[in-house]
Amino acid sequence: MPRLAEGPTAILLIRCPDQHGLVARTAQFVAERNGNVVHADHHIDRATGLFLMRMEWELEGFDVERSGIAAAFTPLAGAIGATWRLHFSDVVRRVAVWVTKQDHCLGDLILRRRNGELRCEIPLVLSNHEVLGDLCRRFDIPFVHVPVARGSDAHEAVQLALLRENAIDTVVLAKYMQILSPRFLAQFDEVINIHHSFLPAFAGANPYVQAFERGVKIIGATAHYVTDQLDAGPIIEQDTVRISHRDSVDDLIRKGKDLERVVLARAVRAHCEDRVLVHGNRTSVFD
Amino acid sequence: MPRLAEGPTAILLIRCPDQHGLVARTAQFVAERNGNVVHADHHIDRATGLFLMRMEWELEGFDVERSGIAAAFTPLAGAIGATWRLHFSDVVRRVAVWVTKQDHCLGDLILRRRNGELRCEIPLVLSNHEVLGDLCRRFDIPFVHVPVARGSDAHEAVQLALLRENAIDTVVLAKYMQILSPRFLAQFDEVINIHHSFLPAFAGANPYVQAFERGVKIIGATAHYVTDQLDAGPIIEQDTVRISHRDSVDDLIRKGKDLERVVLARAVRAHCEDRVLVHGNRTSVFD
Amino acid sequence: MPRLAEGPTAILLIRCPDQHGLVARTAQFVAERNGNVVHADHHIDRATGLFLMRMEWELEGFDVERSGIAAAFTPLAGAIGATWRLHFSDVVRRVAVWVTKQDHCLGDLILRRRNGELRCEIPLVLSNHEVLGDLCRRFDIPFVHVPVARGSDAHEAVQLALLRENAIDTVVLAKYMQILSPRFLAQFDEVINIHHSFLPAFAGANPYVQAFERGVKIIGATAHYVTDQLDAGPIIEQDTVRISHRDSVDDLIRKGKDLERVVLARAVRAHCEDRVLVHGNRTSVFD
Amino acid sequence: MPRLAEGPTAILLIRCPDQHGLVARTAQFVAERNGNVVHADHHIDRATGLFLMRMEWELEGFDVERSGIAAAFTPLAGAIGATWRLHFSDVVRRVAVWVTKQDHCLGDLILRRRNGELRCEIPLVLSNHEVLGDLCRRFDIPFVHVPVARGSDAHEAVQLALLRENAIDTVVLAKYMQILSPRFLAQFDEVINIHHSFLPAFAGANPYVQAFERGVKIIGATAHYVTDQLDAGPIIEQDTVRISHRDSVDDLIRKGKDLERVVLARAVRAHCEDRVLVHGNRTSVFD
Repeated sequence: MPRLAEGPTAILLIRCPDQHGLVARTAQFVAERNGNVVHADHHIDRATGLFLMRMEWELEGFDVERSGIAAAFTPLAGAIGATWRLHFSDVVRRVAVWVTKQDHCLGDLILRRRNGELRCEIPLVLSNHEVLGDLCRRFDIPFVHVPVARGSDAHEAVQLALLRENAIDTVVLAKYMQILSPRFLAQFDEVINIHHSFLPAFAGANPYVQAFERGVKIIGATAHYVTDQLDAGPIIEQDTVRISHRDSVDDLIRKGKDLERVVLARAVRAHCEDRVLVHGNRTSVFD
Repeated sequence: MPRLAEGPTAILLIRCPDQHGLVARTAQFVAERNGNVVHADHHIDRATGLFLMRMEWELEGFDVERSGIAAAFTPLAGAIGATWRLHFSDVVRRVAVWVTKQDHCLGDLILRRRNGELRCEIPLVLSNHEVLGDLCRRFDIPFVHVPVARGSDAHEAVQLALLRENAIDTVVLAKYMQILSPRFLAQFDEVINIHHSFLPAFAGANPYVQAFERGVKIIGATAHYVTDQLDAGPIIEQDTVRISHRDSVDDLIRKGKDLERVVLARAVRAHCEDRVLVHGNRTSVFD
Repeated sequence: MPRLAEGPTAILLIRCPDQHGLVARTAQFVAERNGNVVHADHHIDRATGLFLMRMEWELEGFDVERSGIAAAFTPLAGAIGATWRLHFSDVVRRVAVWVTKQDHCLGDLILRRRNGELRCEIPLVLSNHEVLGDLCRRFDIPFVHVPVARGSDAHEAVQLALLRENAIDTVVLAKYMQILSPRFLAQFDEVINIHHSFLPAFAGANPYVQAFERGVKIIGATAHYVTDQLDAGPIIEQDTVRISHRDSVDDLIRKGKDLERVVLARAVRAHCEDRVLVHGNRTSVFD
Repeated sequence: MPRLAEGPTAILLIRCPDQHGLVARTAQFVAERNGNVVHADHHIDRATGLFLMRMEWELEGFDVERSGIAAAFTPLAGAIGATWRLHFSDVVRRVAVWVTKQDHCLGDLILRRRNGELRCEIPLVLSNHEVLGDLCRRFDIPFVHVPVARGSDAHEAVQLALLRENAIDTVVLAKYMQILSPRFLAQFDEVINIHHSFLPAFAGANPYVQAFERGVKIIGATAHYVTDQLDAGPIIEQDTVRISHRDSVDDLIRKGKDLERVVLARAVRAHCEDRVLVHGNRTSVFD
């Protein structure tokens, strides 16, 4: 992030067909209204011919009021055929973290939010088990136990109601060992998952066992947006670590946890700072 | 490698069911015959209950002649139920490198052999195209063009004859873009391949295109022994590198070449120094 | 770790001059007393001619009682000229974590201890500031504020008394931004520090600023034992991460925190499981 | 590189004090002359307040002839206070590779240039020893032996004359184990060196021995521009690899060679494609 913003900023994520002069025209939009750009990055995806851009500028001193920016940008967006989203840095996302029994990702997210590494609220932790309630209570975070009965979908209505009541923007599946149904996703689709493998290798259940049995020399973790295709949604972040032939499945699990923590945290951070632009099944993450 | 051997060494690769006292008994075998161990490493694979070991000692000063070592070890091997292989460090492997049109792995292997990084001979390079003949001739390495006609298997007899005539121990597929048939592998099975993906992700054709379309954030390369299951044989070595959303397929190919070079070279080195022990579809690589 | 120990184990860390038959003799010591080895690893350091070994075996079924093992090993140790340490896996280390104001390493250690990733007790957190008391209280961990006055060493007596009262085995400096005096270290020397650079680069103050100004393309973190030479003690663990020319010092600090967390956690884990053997200013970490 | 240029391109590297509207004004310069931008990237260095940019566009279709571009840009450059350089992608750099006895970097560079991975000419290899002449002759590359006598600087005149005669743009020190004098550098200063450590750690002689003795857990390599401060010039590229306590100095040398090859190749590639912008003692490398 080149300049350091003093106050709140506007963030524009733009996707449009590539054409001459796009950088000049979009930069001009901000410059001629006296905007102080603190971050601008773009690239062109040759395979699809898409121009993809993130631009962030200070609200202070900008000639257009916050409430009028969308309207001001609409003519240019129309002229270049852009799909776009506008965010403001002081509108902080409300994140629900869903867990089962493992605490390493949840604990990591709570600590990072607490010390300012993550810019979000966590007004809700939801789990299909009771065990992580204690950790949440220690940090005064509301914890709700929503059991999941096999073969029933009654829990979905409860989950969706909780998301509504808490005005949740984003669900983060922090080792929530359940699959979300297409029906659920049709009603709430801003969901980030951490999968404990280097996708697309070892999708589905027990990836560390799969990795061990395949005899790989490196393991990975993948944070991605959830779609109705299991473990196949747009990837936000991945990382890998070398393992040894001496490692058992338990060692893979232990080493993998360090990947899961950091990969999920990086993905949630990028999402909450509006750095992720999804196009097709791919993402651009503007750092 | 702990000690530095002054002269030729014996190398024993052992696999047997785990049981009490194995380290003591195998170490004793060498110690009581005045062997100077220069490398010993072992581990137990919990999942299969196998004890896996590599032991290397100097022939100089050992009480048993080179020709008598196998016979001397046989009683202990029988007692512990071991499958084992005995190698001598001065018996250098004869490697045939098979290529198509890309020269980066071939050139790298030739240079490494030349400067002593790889302990092997390369008496033959075989290709289904002519283009890399020039590179081989510059290094005085015999190059044979064996065209592959689609739908025919006539080339296999030629290939096998060349391997026999040149007393080849190991075939290295250094970007040989053809699949070896089960029938070929039934007659010659010491074959190492470099696959340009992080297997098991993106097996088969065009892995970089597959990787690009899946939107991964990291790419990899995998060196493995070839079996009649495509890209599914025992993995010897893998490595990965981070890519960016700015990268096109061409950038992936370019970055991937650096992985391919070094992953294949490490695998060939380990193989030629008798550091690889295959068990099931997995390998232990003793460094 | 090859075998999975069912109950408590004995762990022997051995250092002696390299000589013929060491593996056989040490393995024999355990085997002839019916010990079930669950981990054995050794190597020879060519530069110094040292044989370095870790051996771990189950106490259950071993012919010698726990209290008699040291005496039983003494004759062999004498014969081979070994320096050695004996540990038992169920004697859990008591760790004091020292901090200043940053919570990321402290929080990480607390969570890892809580979920079993770290085998230790944390009966004391000590700080020269008040700010992290709240985090400790949330986990019912005693927190003591020991101010450090510039130019005075009165705090040292307080610190040493606290270590004694709490029967502390190991001090972990988890971003404790103060230098321990030689006099302190003369009285308590089992101290692990996390330094936020790839040592020996950027020792001393403000390593991220130093790294930024030098224009490095990669940053690192180092966990090491503390000696009276600043940032020069034996290194236990290091890791690195690639940075970009776009990164400011703040970005380096943020990216570095992820390294600091995981590098310190790995070092503390290795130390607490008696996997670290110090020889000279170097360590062997047996995984 | 976003778009794929069909023909030759102009490349502008710009450095100026940060100010409002820079992106708009520079992009406008190309857009209003019908330029088709194929790469544009910029960032702001907060620490120095510098705006740093690379812009590349196709010459075909641009309203200004190649010979007139510099003059056309001069007014804008003056207005924004820019230091800048203009390159054309079809003006290929002439590189002299200097070596001593090790061939791994030289061989790698030759092969990469040959297969198109590097966009440069190599009309000269210069060495203070004879040994690598054979490798050069195999690739029909002129090799000149210029002995270096201790205490004399007579060789410098010979070297400089060779650079002039061969119209060399860039010298690449590919393991040339000699220090260039300030006087030499005053006359020829476009020099890239590969140093076999993670600078600033282990500058000077025998970095692998230094690394081994310090007991680091990771080693590195650094490609940098040469200045009259030994191993202290602007860093272009670095990479690291994990080592083991089992590794001897020889193992470090072997593992380090793989780093040296790839780090130097990446640096030379970035330099030859005009992707490196030096500011102070730091570089921005636009990928």
